[in-house]
Amino acid sequence: MAGNSFGTLFRLTSFGESHGAAIGGVLDGCPPGIVVDMAFIAGEMARRKPGQSALTTPRKENDTVEFLSGIFEGKTTGTPIGFIIRNADTQSGDYSEIKSVFRPGHADYTYEQKYGTRDYRGGGRSSARETACRVVAGAIAKLLLKHYGITIQAYVKQTGSVKLELAPEQLDLSYTEQTPVRCPHLETAQRMIELIEAVKAEGDSIGGVIQCIITNVPAGLGEPVFDKLHAQLGKAMLSINAAKGFEIGSGFDSVNFKGSELNDVFETTNGKIVTKSNHSGGIQGGISNGMPVYFQVAFKPVSTIMKPQQSINLQGEQTVLTPKGRHDPCVLPRAVPIVESMAALVIADFLLLQKTLQH
Amino acid sequence: MAGNSFGTLFRLTSFGESHGAAIGGVLDGCPPGIVVDMAFIAGEMARRKPGQSALTTPRKENDTVEFLSGIFEGKTTGTPIGFIIRNADTQSGDYSEIKSVFRPGHADYTYEQKYGTRDYRGGGRSSARETACRVVAGAIAKLLLKHYGITIQAYVKQTGSVKLELAPEQLDLSYTEQTPVRCPHLETAQRMIELIEAVKAEGDSIGGVIQCIITNVPAGLGEPVFDKLHAQLGKAMLSINAAKGFEIGSGFDSVNFKGSELNDVFETTNGKIVTKSNHSGGIQGGISNGMPVYFQVAFKPVSTIMKPQQSINLQGEQTVLTPKGRHDPCVLPRAVPIVESMAALVIADFLLLQKTLQH
Amino acid sequence: MAGNSFGTLFRLTSFGESHGAAIGGVLDGCPPGIVVDMAFIAGEMARRKPGQSALTTPRKENDTVEFLSGIFEGKTTGTPIGFIIRNADTQSGDYSEIKSVFRPGHADYTYEQKYGTRDYRGGGRSSARETACRVVAGAIAKLLLKHYGITIQAYVKQTGSVKLELAPEQLDLSYTEQTPVRCPHLETAQRMIELIEAVKAEGDSIGGVIQCIITNVPAGLGEPVFDKLHAQLGKAMLSINAAKGFEIGSGFDSVNFKGSELNDVFETTNGKIVTKSNHSGGIQGGISNGMPVYFQVAFKPVSTIMKPQQSINLQGEQTVLTPKGRHDPCVLPRAVPIVESMAALVIADFLLLQKTLQH
Amino acid sequence: MAGNSFGTLFRLTSFGESHGAAIGGVLDGCPPGIVVDMAFIAGEMARRKPGQSALTTPRKENDTVEFLSGIFEGKTTGTPIGFIIRNADTQSGDYSEIKSVFRPGHADYTYEQKYGTRDYRGGGRSSARETACRVVAGAIAKLLLKHYGITIQAYVKQTGSVKLELAPEQLDLSYTEQTPVRCPHLETAQRMIELIEAVKAEGDSIGGVIQCIITNVPAGLGEPVFDKLHAQLGKAMLSINAAKGFEIGSGFDSVNFKGSELNDVFETTNGKIVTKSNHSGGIQGGISNGMPVYFQVAFKPVSTIMKPQQSINLQGEQTVLTPKGRHDPCVLPRAVPIVESMAALVIADFLLLQKTLQH
Repeated sequence: MAGNSFGTLFRLTSFGESHGAAIGGVLDGCPPGIVVDMAFIAGEMARRKPGQSALTTPRKENDTVEFLSGIFEGKTTGTPIGFIIRNADTQSGDYSEIKSVFRPGHADYTYEQKYGTRDYRGGGRSSARETACRVVAGAIAKLLLKHYGITIQAYVKQTGSVKLELAPEQLDLSYTEQTPVRCPHLETAQRMIELIEAVKAEGDSIGGVIQCIITNVPAGLGEPVFDKLHAQLGKAMLSINAAKGFEIGSGFDSVNFKGSELNDVFETTNGKIVTKSNHSGGIQGGISNGMPVYFQVAFKPVSTIMKPQQSINLQGEQTVLTPKGRHDPCVLPRAVPIVESMAALVIADFLLLQKTLQH
Repeated sequence: MAGNSFGTLFRLTSFGESHGAAIGGVLDGCPPGIVVDMAFIAGEMARRKPGQSALTTPRKENDTVEFLSGIFEGKTTGTPIGFIIRNADTQSGDYSEIKSVFRPGHADYTYEQKYGTRDYRGGGRSSARETACRVVAGAIAKLLLKHYGITIQAYVKQTGSVKLELAPEQLDLSYTEQTPVRCPHLETAQRMIELIEAVKAEGDSIGGVIQCIITNVPAGLGEPVFDKLHAQLGKAMLSINAAKGFEIGSGFDSVNFKGSELNDVFETTNGKIVTKSNHSGGIQGGISNGMPVYFQVAFKPVSTIMKPQQSINLQGEQTVLTPKGRHDPCVLPRAVPIVESMAALVIADFLLLQKTLQH
Repeated sequence: MAGNSFGTLFRLTSFGESHGAAIGGVLDGCPPGIVVDMAFIAGEMARRKPGQSALTTPRKENDTVEFLSGIFEGKTTGTPIGFIIRNADTQSGDYSEIKSVFRPGHADYTYEQKYGTRDYRGGGRSSARETACRVVAGAIAKLLLKHYGITIQAYVKQTGSVKLELAPEQLDLSYTEQTPVRCPHLETAQRMIELIEAVKAEGDSIGGVIQCIITNVPAGLGEPVFDKLHAQLGKAMLSINAAKGFEIGSGFDSVNFKGSELNDVFETTNGKIVTKSNHSGGIQGGISNGMPVYFQVAFKPVSTIMKPQQSINLQGEQTVLTPKGRHDPCVLPRAVPIVESMAALVIADFLLLQKTLQH
Repeated sequence: MAGNSFGTLFRLTSFGESHGAAIGGVLDGCPPGIVVDMAFIAGEMARRKPGQSALTTPRKENDTVEFLSGIFEGKTTGTPIGFIIRNADTQSGDYSEIKSVFRPGHADYTYEQKYGTRDYRGGGRSSARETACRVVAGAIAKLLLKHYGITIQAYVKQTGSVKLELAPEQLDLSYTEQTPVRCPHLETAQRMIELIEAVKAEGDSIGGVIQCIITNVPAGLGEPVFDKLHAQLGKAMLSINAAKGFEIGSGFDSVNFKGSELNDVFETTNGKIVTKSNHSGGIQGGISNGMPVYFQVAFKPVSTIMKPQQSINLQGEQTVLTPKGRHDPCVLPRAVPIVESMAALVIADFLLLQKTLQH
C-alpha cells in the first residue's frame, strides 16, 4: 500500500499532479462484457468539471478521458482499463509565491514534511484535480451496477446555514441536476445559490453537507469485522478533498434517541423482508439489509480564498499571502458526482467480493 | 481481503465468535524489541471488559489474554504475535428464540443473508466480544507508540442529551478514568451517570459521542490520496460495533464557518511550525501536520433492550421478542479503550509506512 | 504485508514458533457451508507429523488441532477459522549452543540480522514446525475443492540419485501412501528407502524432488499478468522450508525442445477441448486450460546433520558445532502433504477470484 | 487483487494490450528524491525492444516512455509515477485467423475461457509487449538500488543444447552486452548465435536459461514465512512470459548432494561474516545473508513458429494454422533485462519493507 489504490477486487489505482502532463488511472478487476457508454462517462465528467456555472471556479479543465486499454469493441474485456486525462490548461505561470510559502488549510506544508519535496504547481498531487480519475472509474462502476439495478444518487443537503430538512424519500431527486447547486428542492436551491454568491462576492468560501442514497443494494454486502460496508464507505468519502465528516443513517443524530426508538423493526411486506424505519441506513453489523443505504458527508469551506492571509514561508518566517487568480467559493455541487463515484467503487467491490461466497 | 484483517504493515487479523471456544488474533508486522508490558495490557483489557460498574452489563467476560508467539524473553521478536482469549462464561443456554428470530438492530438477519447460515449464539461473530482482540493489539500498538512519545486519549463527550461542551485542551484528561462513565469533567460525568441509570431503569439504551485526541504525532503520517490519515481513522472507528458517525477536527461543524474563519494559520513558535487554530484536527491533505490529531465518533444506543419488541422469524412471520437476560444501557464508557486501540493501530501502521520513504 | 499471510480471498495467516506455547493460524475467506471433516484433517496432519516411520525424525510433535471459531454445527460459517496446535513436546532443554552459534544452512544468522534478535529455541519461527498450520488450512481447502471435483496428489519423484522416470499418468497414485517414502512406484520406493537409511546411518541428509498433479482444474484460473497460476504456485512451493526450485509442466526440460515439439496442440475429444500433449502443465498465459496441472519442486537436504560442522558464534569467532539430538535424514515424504496443502490454498484462492468475473 | 499489480510498498500496476492505444503503468511507493536518469531508462528499454539484432523479431515497437506524473525537476517526488508507451506500429491488419482460431501454446484459448471474450489482436493482454512496463519500473528500481550499491546482472546461460558451464564468479559480466545473445562468454555466445540462426532458418524457436546475480544485497531482506526472498523472486520470474522454471542457488542440483556437502559454512573474513560456499544463493530461511543472491530461470521456446500447425477454431473444429508474419526464434536475449527488472522490483520492495523494522 502506498495510498494510491482503492478497492480490493474492483480496484482503482490513480496518478497525476494538477499541473503535470496528465492525470490518469488503472481500473483493475472490472468484469468483462460491460458496455462502456462513453457518452455517460463524458456526462459524469461534465458534472465534476470546473466552470459549469457562475457558482464554480472559471478555471477550465480539459476533462477528456482517453481510454488506453481494457476495452475492446465497446466492451470491457476483464483486463485492466488504463486511462489518462491531459492537463491542458495548466498555465505554467508564476509559482514563486506558492513555491516558498505554505498556504493555510492546504497540503503544502504536510507534503513538504512527508516527502521532503513537492510539486508545488497548483497543489500538485494534493489538488482536487485527481478526483477526475475517481469519476472516470466511478462511472464504469455505475455501468456495472446498472446490471444489478443499483442506483446511486447524491445531492447537496446543506450549504453553510441553508439546510434542506426533508429526507431523501420526500424528494424528487430528478430535480437535482436542474439547479447549478445540485439541490433537488428548488426553493432551497435558490437560497443556497444566493448564499454562495454572497460568499463569492466577499472572496470567501463556504462548505456544506452532501446526502447520498443508494437503492436496490442487495442484502449481504459488506465484510465484517473491519471492512464493514459503512466503514469502507466512510473511508471512501473521507478520502475526498475537503471532506471532514461522515455519518451512516441517522449518524450523529442517533445520539438523541433511545434504543427502543432507533431500532429498525423488521416486517414482511409483499413477501419481502423490510424494516419499518431505516435509521440504520440499510446496514446492520456492517452488512447491507436490502433497504436503501444512505449517508451524509460534511465538507469544509475550501481553503483557497480571495483575501489576504497570514502564513509562513519555507524558512519559517511570517509572511502574507495575497489573493490571486480564481477560486471556487463552494465545491459542494461539483463534489456530488465524486461522492457518487466513490460510493459506486465501494458497492462494486463488495458486490464482487460477495460472489466469492457462493459455491 | 475477507474483512478480518486491519492495517498494511502493522496488521491485526482477528477471529472468534461470542460463544465459541475462544476469540483471538494475529498481530503481524510489529517491530522487534518492544517490551511487552503485560500489566499494561491487562489494564487495557480491564477498561473494556463488561461488569466494571453498575453502568455496564453484569455479564462476565474472561478477558485473560494468552500470548502464544512472537514474544521472547519479554520482548517482541518481529514475528507474528498470536493470542487467544477463552470464552469462559458462555452460558450455553437457551438460544431457541435468537435462533429463529431476527432481533431488530442486530446483525442476525444480515449475517443470515450474507452467509446463508450463522452462529446465532450470543450474536456470534457480530458480537462486540471481538473488540477485545482490538484492545490487545491496540495495547501493543500503544507500547510501540510510547517509543515515539505519542499518546492517545479518548473520553465520553456526550451521552444522549448530556454533552460536555469544553474542548480537549480545556480539560484535565487524567480525570477520565476516575469516573465509571469515562468523562473527565466530573460534574458532567455525574449527569451522564444519572441519565444512564434512568435509561437502564426503563430497560432502554442510549448512545453518545466519544472524543479522541492524539498528541505528538509527527508531521508526515498518512498516505494520500486514498489512505489519508483521517480516512483510515474514519474506517477504523466506523468498524467498531454501534459506531454511526465520524468527524475529524471541526467535522460537521465546519459547515457553519467560512474559509477565512476555518483556515488554520501557520506560525513559528519557539522555532517550531504550528498552526494558531486547529480546526483541521492536525491534518492537511490527509497528512499529519504535527499538531494534535482529534476526532469524534458517534455511537447509537445498543440494540439490546429490556422491552418487548416486534420482529419476524426465519419464516418471515411476525413475532414478538421478549426481553431477557442482561444488557448494557450505554456502551460508551467501554468503547473508550476500543476507540483508542483502533487509533493506535492506525497511527502505528502509518508510522511504519512513513519509514519506507527515507533512503 | 508482513509475510505471514498467504492468499487474497482464501487467506491463511499463521503464527508460532517451534518451542513457544503454540502455533496456529486464521483462515479467512472460506465460503460457508463446507462440512469440516475432522477425521480427514487429522489424517492430513498425520501425514506431515514427525515420527511416522524409521525414515523420519523420532521427535514427537503434538499435532492435535484445536479449532476455535468459524465452524458451527460441523460446517464453516464464512467467518474466520481460528485454530491452534499446542507445542507439547518442547523439551525446554539445553539451548546454550544454538543460542550463541549460527548453524550452517539454518536461518539463525539471517533472523538475527533481520530482527536483531531471535527465539533460538528449536529454530523459532524458521522451524518447519510452522508448516503444520499450512496443512490444517490446506485440508480445509481440499474439502472446498472436493465440491468441484478437484484433486491434488503429490508424491516423491526423486531422492538423491534415485529417480522415478515415469510420468504421473503412467502411475497408480493410490500406491503413494503405501510406502513410508511416499513414492507410488514400489520398486523405486524401496531403493529410496535404502538410500535414506544409508544416509541416516552416516548422520547425513539428502534432498529430492516432489511431483504434484492437480486434476479437474476448471479452465480460467489464474490472474495475469503478475498473479499467473504457475507464478503463484511457484511462490507457494518456494515458501516451503528447504525448497530450492520449482518448475511447471516440462519446466527446465523445455530448454531441450523446439517450439514445434513443445507446443501443445488443441483438439476436440468427446466434445471437449483438450491438448494432445501437456508440456505446459495445463497452463497457457498464466491461466488454466482444463488439462491436469502438474509441477515439480526441488528440496535441498535438510541442514541438520549428525556430523561435526564448522561455524561461527555471535562474536564472529570460529567454533565447531557438535551434533546432538535427532534429525530427519530426508524430509521429502513429510513434505508431500505440505506441497499438496499449498497447492490447495492456491487453487482455492483462484477459484474464488474467478467467481468475481461473472455478472 | 486482480493480477495486474506487483509488490507491496514499491508497487507496479500495469495495463495495456499489444495492439491497443498504449501500454503503461503506475509505480507507487517509490521514495522521493531519486534522480530519474532518462538516458538510463531509455537504454534499458533498448535492451528489451524487438529488432535489436538479426536474432530477434524484426517487428518494431515504439518503446518511447512518456512519464506523466510523480517526477518533478528531474527527481521522484514520492507520488505515483504514471507512464505510458504508445503502440505505434500496430499494423491493424488481418486478424481474421487469430480471431477464430486458438493458436497452440498461446493464451488465446485460456483468455477466452476466463473472460468469455478477448482482444485477439496480437495476443492482446497476453502479449509479451506488457513486459516493456516492467522494464520501465525496473529501471527506476535499479536507480533506487544504486543508492545502496546493489547491482543486478543477468545473462543467457543456456540456449537449447548450448550451455555455459562456468559460474557467475568465473565470468566477466561486462561482456554480456557485447554480444547480441547476451552471453558474457564470447565463445559460448558464438555457438548460441549459430544455434539460434539455424533454428530461425527452420522457422522454429528455441528456449533456454537465464542466470541472474544480485550483489551487495544487505543481510535481512525477505519476509518469512510466506514472502521469503526467493519465493517472491520465483513468483516474479515465473510471471514473465514463457518462463517455466525457477531455482535459487544450487536449485534442482541440490538433490545431487548431501547435507554435509551443501551446507554453506559461515566464516569471518576481514571482520565480515560470509559463507565459504554459496549453494544457498545468499538466502537462509527466506532472508538474505549478505552474500550474492543468484538464481536461474528456464524459458520455453516461444510458441509462435513459422511452420503450419494443427489447431481448433472457436467452434472446436479442427483447422490448420498457416505461418505468417515475423517471429522471434529465441527471446532469451531480450528477456535478460526483463529478468533484471523483476528482480529489481522485488529487491526494492523488500528493502523498503525492511526499513519498517527499525524503531
